[in-house]
Amino acid sequence: MTLAHGTVETPAFMPVGTRAAVKSVTMDQVRDLGPEIILANTYHLHVRPGDELIAEAGGLHRFMGWDRPVLTDSGGYQVFSLADRRQLSEDGVVFRSHLDGQLLSLTPESVVDIQSRLGADVAMMFDECPSWPATHEAAESAMERTLRWARRGRDRFEAVSAGAVDGVARSTPGQAQFGIVQGGTHKDLRDRSVAGTVAVGFEAYAIGGLSVGEPNDLMYDVVAHTAEQLPEDRPRYLMGTGTPEDLVESVARGIDLFDCVLPTRNARNGQLFTRNGPISIKNAKYARDWQPPDAECPCPTCRHHSRAYLRHLFMAGEIAAATLNTLHNLHFYLDTMRAIRKAIEFGTFESFRTSFHQTYSRRQPV
Amino acid sequence: MTLAHGTVETPAFMPVGTRAAVKSVTMDQVRDLGPEIILANTYHLHVRPGDELIAEAGGLHRFMGWDRPVLTDSGGYQVFSLADRRQLSEDGVVFRSHLDGQLLSLTPESVVDIQSRLGADVAMMFDECPSWPATHEAAESAMERTLRWARRGRDRFEAVSAGAVDGVARSTPGQAQFGIVQGGTHKDLRDRSVAGTVAVGFEAYAIGGLSVGEPNDLMYDVVAHTAEQLPEDRPRYLMGTGTPEDLVESVARGIDLFDCVLPTRNARNGQLFTRNGPISIKNAKYARDWQPPDAECPCPTCRHHSRAYLRHLFMAGEIAAATLNTLHNLHFYLDTMRAIRKAIEFGTFESFRTSFHQTYSRRQPV
Repeated sequence: MTLAHGTVETPAFMPVGTRAAVKSVTMDQVRDLGPEIILANTYHLHVRPGDELIAEAGGLHRFMGWDRPVLTDSGGYQVFSLADRRQLSEDGVVFRSHLDGQLLSLTPESVVDIQSRLGADVAMMFDECPSWPATHEAAESAMERTLRWARRGRDRFEAVSAGAVDGVARSTPGQAQFGIVQGGTHKDLRDRSVAGTVAVGFEAYAIGGLSVGEPNDLMYDVVAHTAEQLPEDRPRYLMGTGTPEDLVESVARGIDLFDCVLPTRNARNGQLFTRNGPISIKNAKYARDWQPPDAECPCPTCRHHSRAYLRHLFMAGEIAAATLNTLHNLHFYLDTMRAIRKAIEFGTFESFRTSFHQTYSRRQPV
Repeated sequence: MTLAHGTVETPAFMPVGTRAAVKSVTMDQVRDLGPEIILANTYHLHVRPGDELIAEAGGLHRFMGWDRPVLTDSGGYQVFSLADRRQLSEDGVVFRSHLDGQLLSLTPESVVDIQSRLGADVAMMFDECPSWPATHEAAESAMERTLRWARRGRDRFEAVSAGAVDGVARSTPGQAQFGIVQGGTHKDLRDRSVAGTVAVGFEAYAIGGLSVGEPNDLMYDVVAHTAEQLPEDRPRYLMGTGTPEDLVESVARGIDLFDCVLPTRNARNGQLFTRNGPISIKNAKYARDWQPPDAECPCPTCRHHSRAYLRHLFMAGEIAAATLNTLHNLHFYLDTMRAIRKAIEFGTFESFRTSFHQTYSRRQPV
């Protein structure tokens, strides 16, 4: 995947840098971990410090000190999760800032403008994200509105690209825009959403509205059904997913791009992902465990520190606990993706998949 | 200063690693900053995770992943600050753990044992630390008890060194023990304390009981008066001090070793030390300030980030704010010490001192 700030080998995992920072680590540390792309959040950055300020800084890359690709989500997911603080209409969403209660709005057009100012390599279109479970009727209505917003968002994107929108500069020339397929867990709606979104025409396509509480098997089924209809020559992005198992299983179903807060959020809660499955470092049994979290892991945390030390830091509430756990978990995710890419390259993905599950969860692939 | 885990160029500043971690940064980051020695806290490590556990790990160095010298304080200062939770007698101090209320005690002997298990390069003797202001009578009584504890502590230290104390292993062969001079701001008491402590005989000596609220000029006066009486061929350690100005002024008065929580604690509160004095990064005037915190500073924070970005991280409550501010402040302290050492080497300390004050505080040296 070739973007304005560089090339991304796929399938790839994007660490989440919600507020222009990957939680608990510095950008230097992120750089050392080696991801080729990270994600930042349009909603959060619009509210604070503001996309105008970031544009003044020369865009998100210069603002945060990161020179590789960045993808910004559309803010849709965040806004829709503010269930009691937002009003939805055909035009867009009006909501109260979670910070100061100020009345703000996002529309398919304004989201394009904000992301132009932020200067992401990839801007996501604005979509309506229904919660799960959604009736066929509710999912259909959200999916159809999302299609109308796709058209409006793409038109705005092309106008901004042509320099035809006053007051909206683009911090990153060559920005791409990805469309988002909705439709909940209803396959007929996914079919119509794919057809409509591809008809509008984006640089690539994402599957939205999954990983929102539905059973895993159902998610895998919808992913397989949807991914195979998306253009083969474009990366397919499964938004907000998932566990290490989800990554392997979704790649098996055709997915090329992921983002998820799990490795960073769970690190702060003391969960470490290892080749033999996740462990909770606060468990008393690790108090005198002098092994690294994962004996085979070459990350800075595993190279220098024992489970006993990490448990001590966690129990003591030291900030370094969050940092070291995050470094390990992100390394684990990125390393899993490297192993997947290598397996695909050598034509051994199926045997990688089997052995991953045997080691990680001692379960058969679903 | 040659210690079991290496040589320390003096004058030196020790970053504070209270609970076997320098707050907000990883040991890898500390290593990259280049201090030759760090400090850890006997009291905190005794309470959690326990010195027995750390001895099992092979000592503090292995436990925390740090292979250069470590100094552990005696725990005295922490215990005496638990004013309403401790009972003081000639034997030592009985106190309730700040964690679980468990009844614990520290004596001149047990503090030696704990530090032997921790395996610091330098163990500090147990002293009685009166609060400020102290009457002549109160300061005299604490100073005299401290002298009696010096004798007991040194006897125990020698017994443990000789392997003559059952159940107390020493994780670091070649551990040194420093004596502590007390006496508050009363010069006659400082004189008696120096004479008595030197008579007991330690590898080196510290000045305790300052930086506890007394005016700066008074502290400098007591430092000058006390330091000049301490053996010339041994490092002189001023405990718990201080601001960048305090470091320069105390070196001028003969001090070789410092520790202080200011660079790390103030970092977490958004204060950054710069060549032109401290700045508070949360100040609104930095919202669009694209300069680094300190234009001349080569630290990772200043190399990659602007004041505007650091302000954003701080206002957003990102953990990376604490980390980046800490990296900068520690670098500033360590760099100031490097500049001091270089000035001493080249015989230009007085002109360094003048220009430091002109730039940093625009004040004359006191």
